[in-house]
Amino acid sequence: MTLQAAIRLNGGLSNCVNKAWSCRFYCVNTEFVDGLRAVVGETNISTALAVREQHGRDESMHSCKPPDVVIWPENVHQVSTLAKLCYCNNVAIIPYGTGTGLEGGVSAIKGGVCFNMTKMDKILNLNAEDFYVTVEPGITRKALNSYLRDSGLWFPVDPGADASLCGMAATGASGTNAVRYGTMRENVINLEVVLPDGRILNTAGKDRRFRKTSAGYNLTSMFVGSEGTLGIITKASLRLHGIPEAVVSAVCAFPSIQAAVDSTVQILQCGIPIARIEFLDDVMIDACNKFNGLSYPVLPTLFLEFHGTKNGLREQVQQTEEITQINGGSDFTWAKDQEERNKLWTARHNAWYAALALRPGSRGYSTDVCVPISRLPEIIVETRKDLIESNLTGPIAGHVGDGNFHCIMVLNLDDKDEVRRVKEFTDRLARRALAMNGTCTGEHGIGLGKRQLLEEEIGEVGIATMKQIKATLDPKNLMNPGKVV
Amino acid sequence: MTLQAAIRLNGGLSNCVNKAWSCRFYCVNTEFVDGLRAVVGETNISTALAVREQHGRDESMHSCKPPDVVIWPENVHQVSTLAKLCYCNNVAIIPYGTGTGLEGGVSAIKGGVCFNMTKMDKILNLNAEDFYVTVEPGITRKALNSYLRDSGLWFPVDPGADASLCGMAATGASGTNAVRYGTMRENVINLEVVLPDGRILNTAGKDRRFRKTSAGYNLTSMFVGSEGTLGIITKASLRLHGIPEAVVSAVCAFPSIQAAVDSTVQILQCGIPIARIEFLDDVMIDACNKFNGLSYPVLPTLFLEFHGTKNGLREQVQQTEEITQINGGSDFTWAKDQEERNKLWTARHNAWYAALALRPGSRGYSTDVCVPISRLPEIIVETRKDLIESNLTGPIAGHVGDGNFHCIMVLNLDDKDEVRRVKEFTDRLARRALAMNGTCTGEHGIGLGKRQLLEEEIGEVGIATMKQIKATLDPKNLMNPGKVV
Repeated sequence: MTLQAAIRLNGGLSNCVNKAWSCRFYCVNTEFVDGLRAVVGETNISTALAVREQHGRDESMHSCKPPDVVIWPENVHQVSTLAKLCYCNNVAIIPYGTGTGLEGGVSAIKGGVCFNMTKMDKILNLNAEDFYVTVEPGITRKALNSYLRDSGLWFPVDPGADASLCGMAATGASGTNAVRYGTMRENVINLEVVLPDGRILNTAGKDRRFRKTSAGYNLTSMFVGSEGTLGIITKASLRLHGIPEAVVSAVCAFPSIQAAVDSTVQILQCGIPIARIEFLDDVMIDACNKFNGLSYPVLPTLFLEFHGTKNGLREQVQQTEEITQINGGSDFTWAKDQEERNKLWTARHNAWYAALALRPGSRGYSTDVCVPISRLPEIIVETRKDLIESNLTGPIAGHVGDGNFHCIMVLNLDDKDEVRRVKEFTDRLARRALAMNGTCTGEHGIGLGKRQLLEEEIGEVGIATMKQIKATLDPKNLMNPGKVV
Repeated sequence: MTLQAAIRLNGGLSNCVNKAWSCRFYCVNTEFVDGLRAVVGETNISTALAVREQHGRDESMHSCKPPDVVIWPENVHQVSTLAKLCYCNNVAIIPYGTGTGLEGGVSAIKGGVCFNMTKMDKILNLNAEDFYVTVEPGITRKALNSYLRDSGLWFPVDPGADASLCGMAATGASGTNAVRYGTMRENVINLEVVLPDGRILNTAGKDRRFRKTSAGYNLTSMFVGSEGTLGIITKASLRLHGIPEAVVSAVCAFPSIQAAVDSTVQILQCGIPIARIEFLDDVMIDACNKFNGLSYPVLPTLFLEFHGTKNGLREQVQQTEEITQINGGSDFTWAKDQEERNKLWTARHNAWYAALALRPGSRGYSTDVCVPISRLPEIIVETRKDLIESNLTGPIAGHVGDGNFHCIMVLNLDDKDEVRRVKEFTDRLARRALAMNGTCTGEHGIGLGKRQLLEEEIGEVGIATMKQIKATLDPKNLMNPGKVV
């Protein structure tokens, strides 16, 4: 069906435009839903409550706010037509990947249409010579890396969850490999975005894929991390990296948090190109042991990984061992082959579920702050003390090589006092990070929960500038309303 | 003097605001100049023709368009007050660093006030533990690296010219080290920017300096590369890097352009972490020999540099030599100590002056395109053919590790036919890059000369989006008008 036909079905374009400002949100009536259905087809739309509820929440503790309709578009032309329909009817648009976000980013606080992008999951263009791949929004990072296996290349950004790549672009995801390979901000080359009014934007120009440019404003960086508030990402060109010749992982336990974090700071300051350096406190290690059937010493611990040539690796490992030993670290427990390494990193990636398993039936909220590396020992020690004083369960795990860490708060949502204490604790933690020149979120985003903290972080003029950009690119405030600004 | 006093001198704020839209540009009368003088003091302002002409052009062939006034502010509060005065009087603002740009970025096409930032040249905050430094806008990269010498750290972005660091941020500069360390886009952590109306913005929040964040829209990336069209950069926090344990440079000659460029592509594809890989064609090498008193073989040549540990370097060099030898490259000519290396890189950085010396009295225009690495051999070979067919002098030099290269066009501005042929040739070159999925500028920026090419590169929706951003942040179009969009 053409756009014209779809819009006709919906009362005609000029009629839509004329009534635009008089009917803010919730113009989701039968006629409008029929218009959407005419574009995506009967099997790609649902108004069933169970489906809507499944799409109204992510993995955080934010309560479910279901959209009015869920649709599964199959190509960019459909996305564009659907966006125009929403635009003409002042209906909110919420892009949805895998629902693995941690700040309530998919919550439909003003109802509207959830665009589930998982049926657009093709790999469109792999160019091994130029180290790039173009993908549709719905493909996940594991599916991409599985596809790439024989090319000698991989996509290293790894937030733990098997998230969709455009969801990762939208939230500016990072994770365990960022200390070496950067975050989505450094690894997205170009985006195709459907703007709220249905126009299709290529942030760096159509099919362009250079290593650098100084042609005009950096639109790609503006959309990476915009959390679905500026447009719907329908295609991404990503930077790939060569699979390293050699990889080894190791685990090292320390007598204190300070010793583990001091080692991290010193490893980075020596310029060792470490690929992963993850901190887990004793509570987290204990939870991981129990959840994964492992038996690591219940002490503050670093999980490390080295990538390089065989010779280069030897040098990296030797320098790192010298540093950890000076700080009283244990001998390294090695994981050299793929299977052992997978076991180690699965344990790390399961931290969230391991923490939840500490109190069966509980819910989780993973906080996320990031500070300059030199402030890490201080903030982690203070935070640990605060957790004990607040009588809260919040094992600490983090990408300490970036100065980024999480407390995985495990709580009973029915215990109002505990909920209040968690909220107060996480606000104190974010403000502690801000007071140390840090940020209130290294990788989870602002979403619903951190808008006040963003204001404190970026200041009055910064927030005003962000609001100006939002108002310019999304004048009707239809794109994922209520998030970020 | 306070802002209030300065504005009073200038007729009162409300009066200014009321007449705002009726007097577009050129409200530069005695009263206005007195207002500026009251802010910066007698010695920091000039309306002398010679001074204005010196500020109305950069190192490109764009003709001189002098501003009406040149001022040298000494701190951010002065910049803010001066911007407010310009804003109230609808006078254009042109930020000026060292005037070493290559696309006419400082040309005052609508007159106005040139803000020469070189008296704000302090290093405000060096934090070696966190690998960052905060600088005022006027300090140059050489002065910064000289200051850093004993810290074990350095700032690697090196466009050749000893440009000011905030000028480099404004143009998104890169240069010879970008293949390993990234461009300004990857190395600016935070910017303080005075907006056209005088408000002071900290793009990542005041005094923040984390390695990563996902807090809100990426304002830092929006200002890097905006060429002074969105605001005046008054402070930058930059990422520093550890000085490598060992450095060696080498020169290698090749039987053909194709062989030199093929070697580059293969070195990158093998994942060798090369720090610099610069291509010079035979015409360029000949000019460099003559200008610098050197005697390299007059053949297509690569200048290479390796950074790392002593052991790591051995491995990098061995792999690189294997690749160059397979492609018929000469044995490496080594430059191991600092003095020899300086001689080699001075020769490379003097390429511009060496090219101009080919035809004494001539003017230069350095083109700048960037393509995916796999397309490099093809575009350089085609471009060389085009130069010969067009009967033009344009030695080729480039940061081929990024897919980025320049033809340094040497021409007689009085020869109208030659000027026309140069213009046609450089447009053909840019469109050749665009046709190969590339960009019309890898590092020089859009400035005055490439606005049409930017439209072709980014497309209709892209340009419309950039124009929306410009109109929102600079509603009176006072910031460096006529550049970029």
